[in-house]
Amino acid sequence: MDPTDYPHFMEMALREAQLAFEENEVPVGAVVVFENRVIGRGHNRTIALADATAHAEIIALSAAYGHFEDWRLEECYLFSTLEPCVMCSGAAVLSRIKTIVYGASDPKFGGCGSIFTIPTEIKLNHRCEIVRGVCEDEIAALMRLFFQQVRQNKTKVN
Amino acid sequence: MDPTDYPHFMEMALREAQLAFEENEVPVGAVVVFENRVIGRGHNRTIALADATAHAEIIALSAAYGHFEDWRLEECYLFSTLEPCVMCSGAAVLSRIKTIVYGASDPKFGGCGSIFTIPTEIKLNHRCEIVRGVCEDEIAALMRLFFQQVRQNKTKVN
Repeated sequence: MDPTDYPHFMEMALREAQLAFEENEVPVGAVVVFENRVIGRGHNRTIALADATAHAEIIALSAAYGHFEDWRLEECYLFSTLEPCVMCSGAAVLSRIKTIVYGASDPKFGGCGSIFTIPTEIKLNHRCEIVRGVCEDEIAALMRLFFQQVRQNKTKVN
Repeated sequence: MDPTDYPHFMEMALREAQLAFEENEVPVGAVVVFENRVIGRGHNRTIALADATAHAEIIALSAAYGHFEDWRLEECYLFSTLEPCVMCSGAAVLSRIKTIVYGASDPKFGGCGSIFTIPTEIKLNHRCEIVRGVCEDEIAALMRLFFQQVRQNKTKVN
């Protein structure tokens, strides 16, 4: 994929994040792309599903497995608005994702550089390329808006 | 939980691993225990479900969320026959698991000491205690038997 196409797909992930926002979930969205086509999408649904693993990336990967009827997503790109957490970074490696593209960093949970750097770890049997900072400002603005509302409403989100 | 109870629950996880073995999946089993009662169980189903995230631990956690209708498993123990991988270790932390108890170490994917040590990482917002080596010999024997059969059949499992 040409890097000039990254913002286009990140905008699609951002639309998913906006759906999460509307559902009062932490606004994170993700898409899986194969041959420049979206084959999986998802947004964070941890509260709605009462499931700590229902992150945007896991839901998008799940749809992509369904597309291929295979757990190997070898030539696929995972776009996520937020840096994938440790769990999602591990899931991307297990799924043989080619490249992880994300927007904003997550200093609290990030598994792609912030706390651990899982996808490029040489000891694992597969490695994913990491691309950072795509559409970062727009994504960071949405996250800020969400957490401002949470503070105003005193809603506990995690 | 009294540590003398660990082998009892690990035997239940091992029975799940044997189910995976019979289904030609890498034989890993897991149970989630709350107040000395199993509230979730699972075995590895990555091939059957064509889903790289369908690890024993994730399936057992999923059942436990259903039990409480909540993603917080704060007083729960996660027993797994094999050291949880990076993804599953991350999922345990996200789920606020109290203690991870495992049998055999996994030098290829392990996230509880072998490659990363995720559950005790001070920068994460929750930490799980880790207990290692429960029923290790019995579990290691089952794993060896499985991989011997794989080599004989030349089946590709991952």
